[in-house]
Amino acid sequence: MRIVALSRNGGTHYGVRHGDRVTIHPSAASAVDLAVSPADHPAGEEVALADVTLLAPVARPGKFICIGLNYRLHALEGGNPIPDYPAVFLRVATSLVGPGEALTYPEVSEQLDYEAELAVVIGKTATAVSKDDALDHVAGYSCFNDGSVRNYQRLSTQWTMGKNFDRTGGFGPELVTPDELPAGAAPLRIMTRLNGETMQDSNTGDMIFDVATLIATLSEAMTLEPGDVIATGTPSGVGYARKPQVFMRPGDVCEIEIEGIGTLCNPIARGAA
Amino acid sequence: MRIVALSRNGGTHYGVRHGDRVTIHPSAASAVDLAVSPADHPAGEEVALADVTLLAPVARPGKFICIGLNYRLHALEGGNPIPDYPAVFLRVATSLVGPGEALTYPEVSEQLDYEAELAVVIGKTATAVSKDDALDHVAGYSCFNDGSVRNYQRLSTQWTMGKNFDRTGGFGPELVTPDELPAGAAPLRIMTRLNGETMQDSNTGDMIFDVATLIATLSEAMTLEPGDVIATGTPSGVGYARKPQVFMRPGDVCEIEIEGIGTLCNPIARGAA
Repeated sequence: MRIVALSRNGGTHYGVRHGDRVTIHPSAASAVDLAVSPADHPAGEEVALADVTLLAPVARPGKFICIGLNYRLHALEGGNPIPDYPAVFLRVATSLVGPGEALTYPEVSEQLDYEAELAVVIGKTATAVSKDDALDHVAGYSCFNDGSVRNYQRLSTQWTMGKNFDRTGGFGPELVTPDELPAGAAPLRIMTRLNGETMQDSNTGDMIFDVATLIATLSEAMTLEPGDVIATGTPSGVGYARKPQVFMRPGDVCEIEIEGIGTLCNPIARGAA
Repeated sequence: MRIVALSRNGGTHYGVRHGDRVTIHPSAASAVDLAVSPADHPAGEEVALADVTLLAPVARPGKFICIGLNYRLHALEGGNPIPDYPAVFLRVATSLVGPGEALTYPEVSEQLDYEAELAVVIGKTATAVSKDDALDHVAGYSCFNDGSVRNYQRLSTQWTMGKNFDRTGGFGPELVTPDELPAGAAPLRIMTRLNGETMQDSNTGDMIFDVATLIATLSEAMTLEPGDVIATGTPSGVGYARKPQVFMRPGDVCEIEIEGIGTLCNPIARGAA
């Protein structure tokens, strides 16, 4: 299933997309709810995709966990060693936007960079799960643009500040259930296009720590709950590592595409004055 | 005011403590709500403190922001330089417990360490506020024990894993409004006692970045919302920097005391099997 969260007539609804039509499942309380127990949520009205506004698959995730340096060439382009344990940081809900919404260009920095990532949405509580069982806890997959303010990312050893500017992380456009994809959503081509130009072009099969390994590793420390999200890191080709460097500017349009999952498109704009 | 969140007869309530009595304010939806608009919430029933169970002042904060290395002697005891910008990391809600609840001793590590910290709870939305205006956005102050699994904290450059083990962060016992304390809750003596023995004994006036500076700095990047929490870093005396090292063990009791704010007491116990 390809599950969408949408706004229509002032309310938030969840539905299943078929082409350019969406079947709304009125009793579903979240996209995860619909992904993990579809039989509990009978189909309701069908609407045209064009008549609704899509929202992020999870509005305010209980936790949004990000993995750094999870593709070999990206670690190297930043001058980092290949990690033997995932570099983990977190994003807060105020840093996220849905599909089609503007990524906010910061007032205080000109270094807003894109990062194409596979997002994993948890469907079933996971505490200390084995790698073999890990994928049973996935509700589905989506795209994430881990928008990063590079100079703030490096003001201390901890990357949190540069990764949590308001409305700099794009998430969507829909939640694709695991049955639609290869196990662990790999191998799948993953790309960034900035104003139509390809900036990143890699494959989720190149991850150093695959989805099952990440779920097992993270759940050893912290219980993963339904609706929690893991952004699995970005491949090489980010703007700050290019020569010359490329950063996103107001008026730009950034697209993250993952084969079989979809395309997340966000314009870049200054914040409200 | 000294505001408590409490569980009684199966429900969560918010009240004001006077000595060993608590006046419940039934219409308050959160401790922050009661702190910022007490006139909107008339007093209801009065109960004995002994008859209720206290909860963390905020159950699932929208974001829980932690500051590392914010006391000079603590930075030095860990072999770190004195920072010129705050080291920022985040904790997730699954890592928190309330006053009196057990901190969970991890299955996979023997290095669970205490960290006494002043916690600042946001009362009013803050986006890019100046240092002069920053303290107007505070709902109140509490104690935090930033329980840290030291070997996991150092498995990558990012401290997130060691700072987010399930139920390792103690938060409470109550929310003390700013009118009860010096501006920015400094100077106040701050201490850790482990099984009654003093392990940390410092003063919030020794912070490198004071509360107003932290709010101004953080809000430049991310909007702080009511109920968000900032844990302002720990002074020297942590267990891993001692010779010999000291870690918390099941059966231990750890107390964090901040002058004028209160004492947070948590036993340490293994998790449910």
